Amino acid sequence: MNDTIRQLQSHRSIRKFTDEAIPTALLHELIGAGQGAATSSFLQGTTIIRVTRPEVRQQFVELAGGQAYIGTAPEFLVFCADLRRSSNCCEMHGKQFSQGMTEHFMIATIDVALFAQNVVVAAESAGLGICYIGGIRNNPQLAADLLELPDNVYPVFGLCLGHPAQDPEVKPRLPVDIVLKQDVYNDAIDPAVIAEYDETVRAYYQSRTGNPREASWSEQMSGLLGKESRPHMRDFLAKRGFTMR
Amino acid sequence: MNDTIRQLQSHRSIRKFTDEAIPTALLHELIGAGQGAATSSFLQGTTIIRVTRPEVRQQFVELAGGQAYIGTAPEFLVFCADLRRSSNCCEMHGKQFSQGMTEHFMIATIDVALFAQNVVVAAESAGLGICYIGGIRNNPQLAADLLELPDNVYPVFGLCLGHPAQDPEVKPRLPVDIVLKQDVYNDAIDPAVIAEYDETVRAYYQSRTGNPREASWSEQMSGLLGKESRPHMRDFLAKRGFTMR
Repeated sequence: MNDTIRQLQSHRSIRKFTDEAIPTALLHELIGAGQGAATSSFLQGTTIIRVTRPEVRQQFVELAGGQAYIGTAPEFLVFCADLRRSSNCCEMHGKQFSQGMTEHFMIATIDVALFAQNVVVAAESAGLGICYIGGIRNNPQLAADLLELPDNVYPVFGLCLGHPAQDPEVKPRLPVDIVLKQDVYNDAIDPAVIAEYDETVRAYYQSRTGNPREASWSEQMSGLLGKESRPHMRDFLAKRGFTMR
Repeated sequence: MNDTIRQLQSHRSIRKFTDEAIPTALLHELIGAGQGAATSSFLQGTTIIRVTRPEVRQQFVELAGGQAYIGTAPEFLVFCADLRRSSNCCEMHGKQFSQGMTEHFMIATIDVALFAQNVVVAAESAGLGICYIGGIRNNPQLAADLLELPDNVYPVFGLCLGHPAQDPEVKPRLPVDIVLKQDVYNDAIDPAVIAEYDETVRAYYQSRTGNPREASWSEQMSGLLGKESRPHMRDFLAKRGFTMR
């Protein structure tokens, strides 16, 4: 296994950072790495807002449910799916932007995720740690207001970056046979496999250094999917121009 | 700049491969790298179908609009957003799956993209080349049928992998100042910046080794967004359980 693959298999979220700043030149290298990712139909549908003002950081801490490291991380970036920049090209070339297509929403969102993951890999290769912040979608309207996002742009997730001041364990993942299938989906998963994985996750949560808890994977999933999640999302997206038609 | 960041900034799609197979052990390393990516709320919402049957590969060639390399690449993987596996956990724990939430659609889709990008980075670090195949969404119902996908699973994109038999140029990206903004979005982009980038892209298309063409970025974008795109997508997703409520 080469060093890059070893790094990719060793990722864990970092939520405590030293005070050391990230040099601007390195930050630009990371963004350049993100830009290097594949982009659907050459859309380049990602815009990143670098949030530096302490009072705005604090509002993100609160809207994300009290994640204090958003306030203290050396960098906090908000990754936005951006159809604004490219739809402006319609006007330049005498066409009408076909607003609200589900497919356009998808390509912009996927672009953002590919871009962000390259930034993450680049950051970790340079010794930095990261934490994705999906919690900004708790109140995406406030997030959009704080960043003065125009129509056809929406905030997908945030990202904290800095030098790690903790060294947490890697979280155990599902067995590879469960996620990689040959030729057809084949729905039949042996319940014993999930039960064994649940035990692995339970042991991880009980033995990990910080924040021990009592939970298995399947219990967590039943909690996640057994209730409504961010029910404001459809209307928020529609108001921003992502109508899902 | 370190080697990993240099690699990330040097990505280009590969559409011609040698016949050399990818060893199963390496394929599993790549999938393990994908599993190492962050996953929203520990969802692990990615399932990959490895398509090996030549007649099925050929159907994917056709449904993706005649991309012959899908048929000849040493590996062709279809990345699926999977809420099925995790929603089954609701039943295990006496809960009712809250089907059709937009937010659940988003976390599964984003999970897939983060996972896939790690697979791509791992593959390129091992000397392989890749090409994402968004074209499977031309006919996602047929793709789902061919792979026997159950409800609450949908095919996001395909990925061709193999040893490169070509060495194309890197496609020039937007200037970093356009995609990275500080504190607020700031809509004002100097038209001269886009005009200059258009010239860069035009020069790239004219001078590249394979498939020269006459196009600028803004023209391409007006073509992409100035018309409906895959208008079947919303109904297809709804039929699979992704209702976007």
